[in-house]
Amino acid sequence: MSKKLTTRAEDYSKWYNELVVKADLAENSAVRGCMVIKPYGYAIWEKMQAELDRMFKETGHQNAYFPLFVPKSLFEAEEKNAEGFAKECAIVTHYRLQTDPDKPGKLRVDPDAKLEEELIVRPTSEAIIWNTYRNWIQSYRDLPILINQWANVVRWEMRTRLFLRTAEFLWQEGHTAHETKSEAMAEAKLMNNVYATFAENFMAMPVIQGLKTESERFAGAEETFCIEALMQDGKALQAGTSHFLGQNFAKAFDVKFANKEGKQDYVWATSWGVSTRLMGALIMTHSDDFGLVLPPSLAPNQVVIVPIYKNEEDFTVISEVANKIASELKGKGISVKYDNRDTQRPGAKFAQHELQGVPLRVAIGPKDLENGTVEIARRDTLTKEIVAMDAISSTIENLLEEIQENLFNKALNFRDNHITEVNSFDEFKSVLENKGGFVSAHWDGTNETEEKIKEQTKATIRCIPLDISQEVGVCVFSGKPSKHRVLFAKAY
Amino acid sequence: MSKKLTTRAEDYSKWYNELVVKADLAENSAVRGCMVIKPYGYAIWEKMQAELDRMFKETGHQNAYFPLFVPKSLFEAEEKNAEGFAKECAIVTHYRLQTDPDKPGKLRVDPDAKLEEELIVRPTSEAIIWNTYRNWIQSYRDLPILINQWANVVRWEMRTRLFLRTAEFLWQEGHTAHETKSEAMAEAKLMNNVYATFAENFMAMPVIQGLKTESERFAGAEETFCIEALMQDGKALQAGTSHFLGQNFAKAFDVKFANKEGKQDYVWATSWGVSTRLMGALIMTHSDDFGLVLPPSLAPNQVVIVPIYKNEEDFTVISEVANKIASELKGKGISVKYDNRDTQRPGAKFAQHELQGVPLRVAIGPKDLENGTVEIARRDTLTKEIVAMDAISSTIENLLEEIQENLFNKALNFRDNHITEVNSFDEFKSVLENKGGFVSAHWDGTNETEEKIKEQTKATIRCIPLDISQEVGVCVFSGKPSKHRVLFAKAY
Repeated sequence: MSKKLTTRAEDYSKWYNELVVKADLAENSAVRGCMVIKPYGYAIWEKMQAELDRMFKETGHQNAYFPLFVPKSLFEAEEKNAEGFAKECAIVTHYRLQTDPDKPGKLRVDPDAKLEEELIVRPTSEAIIWNTYRNWIQSYRDLPILINQWANVVRWEMRTRLFLRTAEFLWQEGHTAHETKSEAMAEAKLMNNVYATFAENFMAMPVIQGLKTESERFAGAEETFCIEALMQDGKALQAGTSHFLGQNFAKAFDVKFANKEGKQDYVWATSWGVSTRLMGALIMTHSDDFGLVLPPSLAPNQVVIVPIYKNEEDFTVISEVANKIASELKGKGISVKYDNRDTQRPGAKFAQHELQGVPLRVAIGPKDLENGTVEIARRDTLTKEIVAMDAISSTIENLLEEIQENLFNKALNFRDNHITEVNSFDEFKSVLENKGGFVSAHWDGTNETEEKIKEQTKATIRCIPLDISQEVGVCVFSGKPSKHRVLFAKAY
Repeated sequence: MSKKLTTRAEDYSKWYNELVVKADLAENSAVRGCMVIKPYGYAIWEKMQAELDRMFKETGHQNAYFPLFVPKSLFEAEEKNAEGFAKECAIVTHYRLQTDPDKPGKLRVDPDAKLEEELIVRPTSEAIIWNTYRNWIQSYRDLPILINQWANVVRWEMRTRLFLRTAEFLWQEGHTAHETKSEAMAEAKLMNNVYATFAENFMAMPVIQGLKTESERFAGAEETFCIEALMQDGKALQAGTSHFLGQNFAKAFDVKFANKEGKQDYVWATSWGVSTRLMGALIMTHSDDFGLVLPPSLAPNQVVIVPIYKNEEDFTVISEVANKIASELKGKGISVKYDNRDTQRPGAKFAQHELQGVPLRVAIGPKDLENGTVEIARRDTLTKEIVAMDAISSTIENLLEEIQENLFNKALNFRDNHITEVNSFDEFKSVLENKGGFVSAHWDGTNETEEKIKEQTKATIRCIPLDISQEVGVCVFSGKPSKHRVLFAKAY
């Protein structure tokens, strides 16, 4: 391990970048804006995938796989969607390389291998999927279609940051087709709720469920539900979205069905997705100046055991005990690693596991053997305690639950303390500037006001919370009437 | 269900194509050569993935993720590899679309958004991965690196067929780095053996493990291990490969390490992969003229229960019994579906489950309730029997094991009956023409002879089996001396 991380107070953004790399989560690649997700980072993503996949299947969805490429003619069919993504598309134009006659050993694009129609590397898959659904749907009996896809997508972003905004990212995208508007709307809400449950129960990350304003909606959606989380620097992060697409894609791709009355009608649609961006959200919600902090439900190793020994004899005895504890914990479904490397000293191991956010560290030395104890260190509180060896597996089981809960509550307190109601634009700017977080304010409902506030403060409307109460007021910016508050914030 | 499948005898190739589509496994998409994997097909692929992933982790591998794109300069670094894939690459040249000034509502590639360096959509990831490994490896302490990636890859094939050869396909690719030649060679063998175990125990598909000849090797490999399976039409199918890459990629990307003696040395490499092509192999190994036949270990539904009833009253009582059986089976870890759709008659349900290869079908009617029996139909043998209801879950458990075994043995018999030793070129051609399968023949070891045999018969050397016995002979084609036989076949 090299020297310490930059602290959050010194430079939050630098702290994040360093942490991602030093904790072995991901790194930049030779391809502009594309990342390499390293094994430790990928193991966390796999845990997210497994739980989300379980939740999708439990709510009746099946996985499938659609092509990586979208022919340009399909891409442009739904105009708003196309317009929304046209400026950030990777475009395949050729299908062959040839030896470069001018440069021995080098290749060049074969000019004779130009595609008749360009292919867009999917930035999202509505177009290719709805073009496919057309052939799958004739009657109401073919509905609903409830499909999810795990895939990579590409959006040619100019400013990229590991996990938060990368040119290629991994995600899941659900695409569903329904008989009625109300069924599709219910699906979009349901999946947003699945995301919220996952974020809170699994990632220990509190989120606000809400609706996006028109200007922040997904291109091609009639309504976008979202979950918004708050990072420790007071900036909001959109962690997942679920779109009610109306009949827009059905109309663009001519997907009609015979309803129960035998009449032809356009199909209603939703789409919803979360991505490796969640890794960024996870990191920034819980981590501290010592490195990553992981909720036990997402930790590749929930427990590490580190032997403290001076000679081979001690090591042998300690290893016996450690292996016994490890197998006991595994029997309870707890993931545990016995870190018996002889290439590293205990101090270096401690530092590494701290940096990598292992929830519990168990140290066992010769004195512990004498006393029938072990030392347990919690990553979330950075506290240590000596506990009896004979009750260790239940102690650990309880501690893991406690950590999961503690991380959620800590993040929830922070979040709740950073929702500030303001009633004037001066107050609005002052809170944004000095405190950060969500600013709850009245807004007149116009794009124009939203845009002007953004220009002047860099804050955007993160969402109109689903549980917002009706409250007559006046817009903090324009003074025009407003029916309820909305949440503004600077955002990732 | 529409009309029957074309039979294998009528037109094997047509039978395959129809089966894939009618059994709802996959279909062609709007993108040339790219397929849509439908939920039922994808559920089978997910089962393959889960088992392979378990086996990879059990042998010490971790998953990670590397970029989809390979910059041209990296792509061409390992010359043989580059040459091997240059003719079938999808190439990204631009990163933005713009409104087409000549066609309202249409988009065109923005000529100002040309990439400085073209990006190749990965046909395989050695180049991007070895360029990354360079930064990860300094000393022998950093080795071995044992990484696998689940990903999509693109090879611009001209003639495509669902699952067997598609422009985009899903696969896993292992990429490992080692201190010594022998360790890398052992890894390549180990992973080929993992593939063989998976194919035989899980897919019930017998395979021959062998080495490829130079002309059939992976571009950039020094040795390619493979598993070769035999399809029912007598053609071989390469089902997985594992490559010993020597120091080729380490040299191309300058990946050196300090060995235990403190000297700098190039790292030794392997790579290995299986793909959605295995779906094609699975289908063609077991299926029949009635449709798909699935080994129980890969069946999304191992058992379906179909109620036979004339009135609502019968349906209620039967459903009660069916649900009880279903939950008993689920308790044993058996996947079961109670097909209680009221939109389909029992005959149609039977036909669908037969077409989709469900291993066991349980029918329950009013008479069964009276007699305390059910009817069980086996998909592999197409036989039915009446069994006692009270022992049903153990009966089914045993039957599933029996089916798994029976499918393997059936395929093994077929395969073993289709390995024919020949000692003259006339015999060679006659066996290929009239019987098909593997032809075991002496070969002089030259590319030239291999090439000529291919030209005249379309047969290639599938492999030099690992367990081949030394046997002095003469080449069937050239009459030159040979040390052992090799296996020829026409292949997919």
